Amino acid sequence: MIQNVAVIGAGSWGTALATVLADNGHQVSIWMRDPKQADSINHDHVNEKYLPGAKLSARIVATTDLRLAVSEKQVVLVAVPSHAMRQICRDLAPLVAEEALLIHAVKGFELETLKRMSEVISEELPSAIASRLAVLSGPSHAEEVVKRQPTTVVVASESEESMLRAQDLLMNRNFRVYTNPDVVGAEIAGALKNIIALGAGISDGLGFGDNAKAALLTRGLAEISRLGLKMGAMPPTFSGLAGIGDLVATCTSKHSRNWRAGFLLGQGKKLDDVLNEIGMVVEGVRTTRAANVIAEREDVEMPITHVLYAILFEGKDPRKGVEKLMGRLKTYEMEYLNPDGE
Amino acid sequence: MIQNVAVIGAGSWGTALATVLADNGHQVSIWMRDPKQADSINHDHVNEKYLPGAKLSARIVATTDLRLAVSEKQVVLVAVPSHAMRQICRDLAPLVAEEALLIHAVKGFELETLKRMSEVISEELPSAIASRLAVLSGPSHAEEVVKRQPTTVVVASESEESMLRAQDLLMNRNFRVYTNPDVVGAEIAGALKNIIALGAGISDGLGFGDNAKAALLTRGLAEISRLGLKMGAMPPTFSGLAGIGDLVATCTSKHSRNWRAGFLLGQGKKLDDVLNEIGMVVEGVRTTRAANVIAEREDVEMPITHVLYAILFEGKDPRKGVEKLMGRLKTYEMEYLNPDGE
Repeated sequence: MIQNVAVIGAGSWGTALATVLADNGHQVSIWMRDPKQADSINHDHVNEKYLPGAKLSARIVATTDLRLAVSEKQVVLVAVPSHAMRQICRDLAPLVAEEALLIHAVKGFELETLKRMSEVISEELPSAIASRLAVLSGPSHAEEVVKRQPTTVVVASESEESMLRAQDLLMNRNFRVYTNPDVVGAEIAGALKNIIALGAGISDGLGFGDNAKAALLTRGLAEISRLGLKMGAMPPTFSGLAGIGDLVATCTSKHSRNWRAGFLLGQGKKLDDVLNEIGMVVEGVRTTRAANVIAEREDVEMPITHVLYAILFEGKDPRKGVEKLMGRLKTYEMEYLNPDGE
Repeated sequence: MIQNVAVIGAGSWGTALATVLADNGHQVSIWMRDPKQADSINHDHVNEKYLPGAKLSARIVATTDLRLAVSEKQVVLVAVPSHAMRQICRDLAPLVAEEALLIHAVKGFELETLKRMSEVISEELPSAIASRLAVLSGPSHAEEVVKRQPTTVVVASESEESMLRAQDLLMNRNFRVYTNPDVVGAEIAGALKNIIALGAGISDGLGFGDNAKAALLTRGLAEISRLGLKMGAMPPTFSGLAGIGDLVATCTSKHSRNWRAGFLLGQGKKLDDVLNEIGMVVEGVRTTRAANVIAEREDVEMPITHVLYAILFEGKDPRKGVEKLMGRLKTYEMEYLNPDGE
């Protein structure tokens, strides 16, 4: 069934999701702040800054007017940087129809409150809407999605109806949508993998090899799972697309901004210069700051996160940091996989 | 403590492990069939065929005489192709000292019997030796190990003493050795990841992207774990270095022969031509044949293995195969991660 859909945010991921929706025949409004960007989408059907080279469907209509974007939409899909989530929810609150399906595709925590995105949403939007929220995650580089390359994602929701609606809306031949009931796990895995991607980039930037990177991913998944389980996530999520799938895609792909930021850091560049060079939001940097505090609050051992924090914010030498991670004392594998001896 | 060690097999992995042992100060004999290769290791300290460019320690002594290689050795480390395991065990049986520590580093099944390597060993060697066997696995490209790049591996054994001896023998600053009590899991994960690496190579060879590869790895780990658990493995092994770690290293590295064989298949080459071009054993091809039968015997769903089997041995078109995998019907993620609803 053709739906009227608003996509909030025209970064690479919002634009790619708008493309999937347009491919599926839906009417898509996409909202952004920059009027020039909106003009370029409406007239030239391109988003040169975020998805250079991709031709967008003429069925995607851009606007800078949030009211217009959301008006009479059955589905609202939010794809903004995590630090913009609370404000955009406040702006959306009076505009979204009560029966609309809300989906978010944002991977990060709110830095000030250490809250997950769905927690921010539930504080800012009417509970009728927030309680039916669906979360989109999984291994999905926007650059490949707009090329219609095969991609699998996960839609997580506490509402079975929302999962199925979101699945029905987005699923097509190239874009496979799997449902999963674990919102907490999908959000935690999606946010934290960016920390490990920074670490993987640093390792590559230092000239270490695929053996070192594989070790980092393995222990990264272990620490992500540890925190997730402590916070109420379901174990299989970390073995699934939102867990290991997204982790692998983010740590081993040239498309990953987080990996690339790490790579430049590993080559000896300073954080500010790296962020300037990349010119887009690198979620992993903020997520490292947030997770470093959450780990302490939850009393969960997260050695990679702590080392990344020291490299990013305390001037620790990246080589010494990675070497410290490789040379840790525990050498009984079950111990770091199951630190509580479970 | 300095040990006298025999390494059986001078392929890339045997040679790399001999290098680690020599770095640790041990006396190393390495056995191979080819007298020219032995000469070249003894006089030029190189193994040009299997590890071109690497300079080997003068402490590594090559021989084609198995009796001489094994004589008075406290440790025997076997690193031969899986199809050579039974015969080499028969040859070793009368030669190995009863108190010697036996380690194997072989990833595959015996095709004719569908047995794991440690099962073959326990059938052919005296039980005093076989019962103390240690299995070496994990993400470890030989090319990086000889460059002293950071690497982590797992030593699995039912004997705690053997695990600790093997760990002590091999551990150094660049080569971190973790112990794990799960022999079955380490062997199954180590063998089956080569099937997924073939699949990942095919996906890359067809021009699919990192999203598709991440999906394949995720579902690959799920089917490896399913079979492993059915066969008595411990769940954490699949989340550890021998599981996800080795899978990632093998599916995403240019050093992987299995990935490269898949890549050439994806580009449209025929299996025989691919194997000729690679010129070394591609364990994943035999493992696919074995696992295809084991899956049926154990009544475990292994869709990737079945599709790979059809591509390798039944002339199935690789593109149709991968598309079939991407377009499978199940879309409730928990269902494929936990097919028994656990």
